[in-house]
Amino acid sequence: MKKVSESTVARLSVYLRLLTEVSATGVATLASEELARRCGTSAAQVRKDLSFFGTFGKRGLGYSVPELTAALRQILGLERRWRVALIGAGKIGAALMAYQDFRRQGFDIVAVFDTDEAKIGVDWNGLVVQADAELPRCLKGIDIAIVAVPGEAAQGVVDRVVAAGVRAILNFAPIKLNVPEHVAVKTVNMALELEGLSYALVNEARRSRRVTSRPAASRG
Amino acid sequence: MKKVSESTVARLSVYLRLLTEVSATGVATLASEELARRCGTSAAQVRKDLSFFGTFGKRGLGYSVPELTAALRQILGLERRWRVALIGAGKIGAALMAYQDFRRQGFDIVAVFDTDEAKIGVDWNGLVVQADAELPRCLKGIDIAIVAVPGEAAQGVVDRVVAAGVRAILNFAPIKLNVPEHVAVKTVNMALELEGLSYALVNEARRSRRVTSRPAASRG
Repeated sequence: MKKVSESTVARLSVYLRLLTEVSATGVATLASEELARRCGTSAAQVRKDLSFFGTFGKRGLGYSVPELTAALRQILGLERRWRVALIGAGKIGAALMAYQDFRRQGFDIVAVFDTDEAKIGVDWNGLVVQADAELPRCLKGIDIAIVAVPGEAAQGVVDRVVAAGVRAILNFAPIKLNVPEHVAVKTVNMALELEGLSYALVNEARRSRRVTSRPAASRG
Repeated sequence: MKKVSESTVARLSVYLRLLTEVSATGVATLASEELARRCGTSAAQVRKDLSFFGTFGKRGLGYSVPELTAALRQILGLERRWRVALIGAGKIGAALMAYQDFRRQGFDIVAVFDTDEAKIGVDWNGLVVQADAELPRCLKGIDIAIVAVPGEAAQGVVDRVVAAGVRAILNFAPIKLNVPEHVAVKTVNMALELEGLSYALVNEARRSRRVTSRPAASRG
């Protein structure tokens, strides 16, 4: 199988989400143009993304909603449940525990860790917080680690998570993590996304100032 | 100024975060190699990223931490405060309201909207929830809209947000949004990130099965 890009995999998730919505309305087939339009992409892109994984749909008939749904679920590894450990029992961790879509999609948070003595051993959102020192022992059988610790602690935590054999990490710490090639990392950084927006706003303003030759506002 | 890629802008945010940490420890200068190493990139990449915006640092001396901090803050549009509207007073919205880093970094959530009659007019995390119908009138002066509504409602909301003149959107809905070119969109989708990880786990397992010629597990 050819190397599939992260953006292709992300689009498969988007297709699956639309198919799930469509399925709930009782629609049985969907043309690739319609699928593409409702996912904000082109029919050619849909066909290319799916071509990595086999042949789907019939010319003139479109895709069978249940068949393509099942295929995408299998491709994305959603046909089974995943055991997830949460490292960091803070605000972000609490929001994640409340995020019911995780469980609905097959991701079960089954363990939570923290370094705070006041939290260890205490029930927290239905799980007993374990000591950070227990990581090596307690990560056996964990598929995915969610790292929700401060930036300066994150790389150290990740090194121990990787040493314990975990091969997938969802990172909320605002740093770039170094991991071996066999470990998959996805980073969610809302502050960074917001800064991307403020950059775009400032930059757009700078551009339009140049274009219209309006006097530059004081930087005050 | 040349078109700067989103990944460069994201790295600038990472550099800024490291500089802020370093600054708190009283360090006044930082070599590009050290900055690069601690941000998980190369010195050449750091120099290239910064070269879009001017000349920083002195050969053999490295970067002045306060000067580079100030420059990055200005480049990223963090020298001012931004007025943010939250659309969707649900679980994700509540987690965002509790996320104090937003405010610390200059992003003030000043308005919240929902369609749920039971929520409208009620105090919610310190703001009174406004009716969705008020969007066109109440988005005046808003810089950034956070869209935290269900997928099927998101594009409609975004169309009205854009029509009201908002030029930056942070999207938590699990769909790809269509917006005019002058509008910046960043999407945060935790379910999608998790699916990227489960894809990687399944795919890695498939690859190693092929490599070691172990019999393929039943698809059940």
